[in-house]
Amino acid sequence: MSTAIANAVNQQVRLAQRPVGTPGRECWNFTTEPVAGPAEGGVLIQTLALSLDPAMRGWMNEGKSYIPPVGIGEVMRAGGIGRVAASRNPKFAVGDVVSAGLGVQSWCLVPEAELRRSGVAKIDLSLGSMTQWLNVLGMPGMTGYFGLMDVGQPKPGETVVVSGAAGAVGQTVGQLARIKGCRVVGIAGGRAKCDWVVNELGFDACIDYKAGNVKAALKEQCPKGVDVYFDNVGGEILDDVLARTTRGARIIICGAISQYNNTTPVQGPKNYLSLLVNRARMEGIVVFDYADRYHLAIAEMAGYLKDGRMKSKEDVVEGLENFPEALLKLFSGANFGKLVLKVAD
Amino acid sequence: MSTAIANAVNQQVRLAQRPVGTPGRECWNFTTEPVAGPAEGGVLIQTLALSLDPAMRGWMNEGKSYIPPVGIGEVMRAGGIGRVAASRNPKFAVGDVVSAGLGVQSWCLVPEAELRRSGVAKIDLSLGSMTQWLNVLGMPGMTGYFGLMDVGQPKPGETVVVSGAAGAVGQTVGQLARIKGCRVVGIAGGRAKCDWVVNELGFDACIDYKAGNVKAALKEQCPKGVDVYFDNVGGEILDDVLARTTRGARIIICGAISQYNNTTPVQGPKNYLSLLVNRARMEGIVVFDYADRYHLAIAEMAGYLKDGRMKSKEDVVEGLENFPEALLKLFSGANFGKLVLKVAD
Repeated sequence: MSTAIANAVNQQVRLAQRPVGTPGRECWNFTTEPVAGPAEGGVLIQTLALSLDPAMRGWMNEGKSYIPPVGIGEVMRAGGIGRVAASRNPKFAVGDVVSAGLGVQSWCLVPEAELRRSGVAKIDLSLGSMTQWLNVLGMPGMTGYFGLMDVGQPKPGETVVVSGAAGAVGQTVGQLARIKGCRVVGIAGGRAKCDWVVNELGFDACIDYKAGNVKAALKEQCPKGVDVYFDNVGGEILDDVLARTTRGARIIICGAISQYNNTTPVQGPKNYLSLLVNRARMEGIVVFDYADRYHLAIAEMAGYLKDGRMKSKEDVVEGLENFPEALLKLFSGANFGKLVLKVAD
Repeated sequence: MSTAIANAVNQQVRLAQRPVGTPGRECWNFTTEPVAGPAEGGVLIQTLALSLDPAMRGWMNEGKSYIPPVGIGEVMRAGGIGRVAASRNPKFAVGDVVSAGLGVQSWCLVPEAELRRSGVAKIDLSLGSMTQWLNVLGMPGMTGYFGLMDVGQPKPGETVVVSGAAGAVGQTVGQLARIKGCRVVGIAGGRAKCDWVVNELGFDACIDYKAGNVKAALKEQCPKGVDVYFDNVGGEILDDVLARTTRGARIIICGAISQYNNTTPVQGPKNYLSLLVNRARMEGIVVFDYADRYHLAIAEMAGYLKDGRMKSKEDVVEGLENFPEALLKLFSGANFGKLVLKVAD
């Protein structure tokens, strides 16, 4: 281990308490510890950038979910991109750039036994930039790809609606649906996001939910109804779309960001009986189920990035110390594009 | 046409106004008209028994659904069993017993052009009794069969939960799931229904929702969680089951009788994010979609009736004049078994 590493300090953000509503600074502890070198078979990774995602809010809650919650006092869970700083594993060389479950910390020591669980995998920067590897080629992209293709099963000519359209998952879903020959209508907050989604990403239309009546706008923009809805937000917007579904429609439940900081019970979709009337389906997606096929989706999406049919936008915040406030941008909708926390060069 | 028929009077129940909440007598007009003989190609059917179903409540509402609403002043829509009293169609002979969309009236004249739309079809009373043809071998049975088998796709050893367990659809679903090798837990109102479902129909357990905590009872009776839920009721019970679903669970949305007479908005399932966590699916069923395969399901179910693996229970109310009050039994849960209105012998 080099002297630079031996002198480095691992800065960490730990969960101090479970949030009630919006998670403020009081939920976090900032700690430091010395950086240790890897044991035989392990690697030491320097964090370069972390992915900030709505799902993190769920991981902060107690109780059963699709993965265990982060424990009080533990380093907050986060996926990210890092550089191998020291390696005692023949599969990884110093300087390799990897994606991994790094946690919100500036260094991550991964013992051999944890390499698989942490998902440490070399990434090919010729396929996409580092931030694209956290976006279209990363978890959000994989979520959008498999949610749309496997659960949504869009057919050419169908109308696909996606909420959180300017977000990480939303931009992937909408562009992919366009490539597959669908009419694509986004829903996003504010004129700037809507304009970008239409003018830069090529959506057919985008509804600004902050500007007024989503129901009326859906009627105008989806004259033949909604065949596929990719839901990232829940709440009223889910109900508005349910009222416009076609017979046999597919609704992908990917998230419900409008509900995550509720201190009251989640608002259930009161128009859910549209599923009955329309013989429609509402189904959840958890991206980890598709891990065996990530490489296929990455190859396809990298092709679209290369030939310009797919674009990506990342919103980069700098500095591990800004993690608490950066995370909140997701819930206020202040982020524009995939939210990334840059930790080191 | 015989003199007896020529002198007969068609007694009809027409929709007088759309209900607000529970539909009382004020929603109905009782009218009479002379019975006419059929024109060339048509048949005249005497109504013997009518099927009373929760779906009728939906047909009384204005607005788009899977079929148009009953118009104000029109004879109320109803399926039933009748006897051909006069025929000018070579496919039907006087005395044939048929199932058809007869409407709430004592006689039904079906012109040739309407035979198909009204679903007039001879029934074979050697396969099941007249009331069984309105129950297990009729629309409720078909709804249960295709909802469970096509949408629910139960596998042997899985746990299937069905609400409205003593009702027409529920008894079919539960018994069929048992025959297919599943653990079956019913939900019904009152000790008598629960006992019958377990002791007579062979369900593994039945939860009395009127007796207390459904959530706790589900935990006890479904220790491995709920793989398939056939929902006839909606409301709190749907939420309680959502909280117990397994990974990859299937929820069949067949009805929501707890919500049909609401004057407030439908209660949406606030636990719908269980679909996400569990990669589960919620999907609607409308029985008409499976009309091409009714004959296959009828043949299978008639076999189960014959060999005693399936039983049926009908709750027969007599007299067309009692239609308004009979219908309300569905919503109070006062009916015990498939609700049938007997009109003539």
